[in-house]
Formats: sequence, structure tokens, C-alpha cells
Amino acid sequence: MAQAIKPIENLIEEFNKLPGIGPKSSERFVYYLLQQPDSEIKKLIQAIEQLKNKVKRCSLCLTFSEIDPCPLCRSSQRDSALLCVIAQPTQIQLIEKTGEYNGLYFVLGGVLNPIDGITPEHLNIKQLMARIKNSPKKISEVILALNPDVEGESTSIYLFKILQPYVNKITRLGKGMPVGGDLDYADEITLQNALKSRN
Amino acid sequence: MAQAIKPIENLIEEFNKLPGIGPKSSERFVYYLLQQPDSEIKKLIQAIEQLKNKVKRCSLCLTFSEIDPCPLCRSSQRDSALLCVIAQPTQIQLIEKTGEYNGLYFVLGGVLNPIDGITPEHLNIKQLMARIKNSPKKISEVILALNPDVEGESTSIYLFKILQPYVNKITRLGKGMPVGGDLDYADEITLQNALKSRN
Repeated sequence: MAQAIKPIENLIEEFNKLPGIGPKSSERFVYYLLQQPDSEIKKLIQAIEQLKNKVKRCSLCLTFSEIDPCPLCRSSQRDSALLCVIAQPTQIQLIEKTGEYNGLYFVLGGVLNPIDGITPEHLNIKQLMARIKNSPKKISEVILALNPDVEGESTSIYLFKILQPYVNKITRLGKGMPVGGDLDYADEITLQNALKSRN
Repeated sequence: MAQAIKPIENLIEEFNKLPGIGPKSSERFVYYLLQQPDSEIKKLIQAIEQLKNKVKRCSLCLTFSEIDPCPLCRSSQRDSALLCVIAQPTQIQLIEKTGEYNGLYFVLGGVLNPIDGITPEHLNIKQLMARIKNSPKKISEVILALNPDVEGESTSIYLFKILQPYVNKITRLGKGMPVGGDLDYADEITLQNALKSRN
């Protein structure tokens, strides 16, 4: 006579959909919530509701924002002739933290990955073309800031080909040794890149 | 000019409270949800709401249940003279699955752990005493099914002392080698227990 408690099972199933979460963790979440006061549950529900109600996509750069265009895209402080293409919205903050970049961004929504079935149609490539063609100020440089792995590289090559007729300068992030890296543990290609870009 | 998006930050903070979840996982959850259709978000919110609205504690065994008393406590098929004390509600199902036990349960709500500040007042010990004293049918045996670790053992010893005046038979789970265990890897105490309980 097992006690299947429907609302518990249902929420375990929902949490199970979260990335990296299996049935054991889901169950722990549910029993944790069962032991929280109502006020805490209310805060969680409200936070989820507000996420959906208040966060939209910026129509220019496709990042998440409470306003459209997003604060970055509407800022007069930024150089609107520079466009940095990143795979995911979270990467904007990583680049912003460096303080090295003063242009605008565009969220590609992923990278090409034929094995996982991610073809150009699954990425925001049409929107990127439109963004570049319709830019009030001509885009002078597009920076392809994708991961330096197989998928990122092949996506960069693909984008380079289709953007070339519209943009004079298309660059990628510099490659070399990471700060704090150890020569003994660097792979050949990293070392090769570090030698090529020596200064 | 970092883009702090309040609803995103808020939900990251809420998910961060879940057991075993840090800021990186929380962020992944939030960006995952942002990419889901509204219907999925609605299902998640409803599942959380229903958890709080429909799941209560059984007033007899203190487990979670949609009805009070819970199906187990109200069942006429169970031997109400046997009471098995477990630390957490989830452990009821583990014991039920064995098919070895036909009595009732009581959820202690944890085990004694002075280092973490868990003293007898933090556990459902008063309720356990009341449950035993007010049982319609006299409790003939209490099984202390707590983990065979330091905290579980000391909690069992504590409970043994205070329950002794009211219950004739107080038992613990048998100890020995786990099925599939390897002598070479068994610790001394497990091996000691296995020898003592040889049959």
C-alpha cells in the first residue's frame, strides 16, 4: 500500500525538467518546500510569475530585458557601429565586466551543432542579418565572441561567410594562454595559438 | 553598465535556497524557464500551489498526506500495535517497498545532532509520546528505524530510554553486511555487527 501523493509526484515531475536535475534532487526540492512556511512558497511563486510577466526579449539584440529596446541598445553612451555576437544572453554580463567593450550586442541563441540537430534555422541568423542591414549607423565591425571549441569555430566560419558582403571588419576573440594557465597542461592548439598571437 | 534584471535576480535568489543548489545552477534554471512556453511555466506554478494547498501532515504519524489521517493510519489492514519510527516521511516508502512490515509509522522529523543544534525539542518527540500513550490499541513494539550512524544511534538510545516505561518491546533495524557487499571493503564495525548477528 504505497502512498502516492499526487501533488508531490506532480511537482517532482516539474522540477525534473530543470537542466541537470534528476528525480532524487527533485524529490529533495519538494520535501524542502513542504517544510517551508507559506510566505516562502508565495515568494517563489511570485518570482516565477514576475519572470514571465516582466521579462521580455529586446527586439534589437534579443537579450532578456524588462524594457524594449533594452538599456544597452537604447544607451547613447555605446558605440552603435560595433556589434558583438554572443551565443547566450548571460555572456553579455561576462563581457561587460571586462570593461573592454563599448559597443552593442546580439544574441545568436546558441551555436551550430549538426549532431544535436542545431542548424542555421534554429539560430537568430535572419534577425542578425536584419539587425545589421537596418542599423541606423553602419556597423563597422562585428565581433564573433563564440566559444573557441569545434561548434563555436564552425559557427564563426559560417557567420563570417554570410556577413562578409555587409560588414567590412569581422573579428573573433583572441586566442592564447589563459591567465594563470600552465604550459605543462596547455593543449597543442592553445599553445599554437599562443605562439601565433605572441606580442 | 551592467544589466541587472530584477525579476531574473529575484528568481535566482529563490532557487538558490533549494537544497544543494548554488548560484550557477539557479541561473541555469531561470534561463531555462525564460525559454519555455507560458504553458510550462503555468504547470510549474500550479504544481507548487497545489503542493501547499493540498498536502498536509497526518495528525497521527506526521507524514505528508492529502487526507488526515493518512491512508496508512486509517487502514484497517495494518497492525496498529506496531509502530515504526523513521526520521523522514520519504523513508516510509522505502520500508513499504520491502513488503516486510505491516504496522504503522511515526515521522520523527530528523535525528538528534547537537553540533547542528538539533536537540530533542526540534524533533517530534512529544508527539511520539502522545501517539503511544493515546493509541486505541496498546503499542506492543516500537521499531526505531533510524540510520546506523552516530546521530541515528544516539537518537535511538535517547528514544529507548524515554519510551521504555511505556512500551515492552523496542527494537532497532538489524545490522550486518549489505547485500552485494564486499568483505574486503567492509569497515570493522559493520563486520563486527555481521558476526554478532550471524545466523
